[in-house]
Amino acid sequence: MNQVPQSIQLQPDDTPFFNQDIAFLENVLIQFIQSEMHKYGFTDAVIALSGGLDSTVVTYLTIKALGKEHVHLLYMPYGTNTISLDHIQLIATDLNTQVETWDIKEVADEMFLERDIQQPLRRGNVLARLRMVNLFDASAREKALVIGTSNKTEILIGYTTWYGDGAAGILPIGDLFKTQVRNLGKHLKIPKEIVQKPPSAELWPGQTDESEIGIPYEILDRILYYWVDQRFSEKEICEMGFAEEIVHRVIQMCYRCLYKQRIPIIPKVSSRTVGLDYLYIKETGNITP
Amino acid sequence: MNQVPQSIQLQPDDTPFFNQDIAFLENVLIQFIQSEMHKYGFTDAVIALSGGLDSTVVTYLTIKALGKEHVHLLYMPYGTNTISLDHIQLIATDLNTQVETWDIKEVADEMFLERDIQQPLRRGNVLARLRMVNLFDASAREKALVIGTSNKTEILIGYTTWYGDGAAGILPIGDLFKTQVRNLGKHLKIPKEIVQKPPSAELWPGQTDESEIGIPYEILDRILYYWVDQRFSEKEICEMGFAEEIVHRVIQMCYRCLYKQRIPIIPKVSSRTVGLDYLYIKETGNITP
Repeated sequence: MNQVPQSIQLQPDDTPFFNQDIAFLENVLIQFIQSEMHKYGFTDAVIALSGGLDSTVVTYLTIKALGKEHVHLLYMPYGTNTISLDHIQLIATDLNTQVETWDIKEVADEMFLERDIQQPLRRGNVLARLRMVNLFDASAREKALVIGTSNKTEILIGYTTWYGDGAAGILPIGDLFKTQVRNLGKHLKIPKEIVQKPPSAELWPGQTDESEIGIPYEILDRILYYWVDQRFSEKEICEMGFAEEIVHRVIQMCYRCLYKQRIPIIPKVSSRTVGLDYLYIKETGNITP
Repeated sequence: MNQVPQSIQLQPDDTPFFNQDIAFLENVLIQFIQSEMHKYGFTDAVIALSGGLDSTVVTYLTIKALGKEHVHLLYMPYGTNTISLDHIQLIATDLNTQVETWDIKEVADEMFLERDIQQPLRRGNVLARLRMVNLFDASAREKALVIGTSNKTEILIGYTTWYGDGAAGILPIGDLFKTQVRNLGKHLKIPKEIVQKPPSAELWPGQTDESEIGIPYEILDRILYYWVDQRFSEKEICEMGFAEEIVHRVIQMCYRCLYKQRIPIIPKVSSRTVGLDYLYIKETGNITP
């Protein structure tokens, strides 16, 4: 693990974005979910609920937007995980709703064996993608839109499985840093055990995001905010007091995962090419330019 | 199946695009593969080779671009398919290379059983996505880029499995209509059995693309060419002699699958949002605007 500059704390006056009106934000996201469902022509949604902060926040928002009878929740553990199961039960009780469970262990273990997949990272990516396979099948079964749970922090630094957890129709919290998701979770009154537990992608037992990334979210989110949202240079961010090594590493993480944020690259050999100049405005049904 | 206007034939003089310089096109695509590999920092590629036209053409192009020792081919049948197996062997012999095989039947059947997945379309989509899971795992194992095999026709009308067969790093033939891919296949001298066989997504036994879509590729590609590349209106295309019902249906297919051609939609609540105004120019490493 890399050394973390523990001396840097969040300053209330240098994080205007983190202090935005949370009730207003909640309304914007609820209306976004409603309007996208309408545009796609769906009444129902499916969500992969892990019992972590992000999927819980998305679940609460979506149920507020659509009503619980229109939201199908899928819990897909790898074997028995008593902590996440407890949290799933807390959520189900609090929302008075059902959660469908599929233990992916049998299918995943068969694949690990047949394909000789041993390394934890490769296994973790297979698990994330197998969950996607089942989530999209459930969306076909329920004629429902897949609502994803990725946040801005993990998308920007590439802390996601490509075509795995990031695969979805819409990403309601995709423009919120992890720190903001936590604030929104408190505002939505999700179970406090879920707000407080250390974030984990659960790629393997005992894993936590912050120990794997090596930077606490409060530091990471601020560097990303200054670099992406405020367009500060690397040098300017360092001059604010952030450790040079950390700032450099965060920016490199952003560069290295840009490929995950676009559709596959197609070489242009015709007058209109998908992903380049064959684009559309969904609102009007027009294809432009 | 819908009625097809059999009277409409390809006219040499109204399809300038289909008659483009095929040797030049081949060179452009080979250079594209080489330059993208270089930009991503990869020396090796993985390809899911089904024995069909598209994946065979991509395999021949990629081996020309990188050399056969840098191209890992994965054949992933569902159970025994003697026809495709014969074609895989033809390709392996012709290219004097190895093809790794994984029969996905055991993992897929376990999933069908556990999740009670019965309908052919749902099963077909699960198969396409399970192939993706293994292809991406192989890419991690081989430290290789995933080269996809989707063509422009199927991308435009949405005849792909979202996050399945369309998932890749690059799509070398993504701007070529199926008709053009067949011409390129002849030029590349791929086995003639593969050029001649009816295209099939092999979602279930005996399926052919043209019977499922209900329009022969020669008609479909021309309608798409006039609508997408030449920007003709629906009315103008009908006035050329294409059946109104067919033209309307093709254009509706295009509209209905636009969501598959972009990354998941994120609501903008900050000053820079992934997929909207946080974009990049890969060549210079700059993130723009």
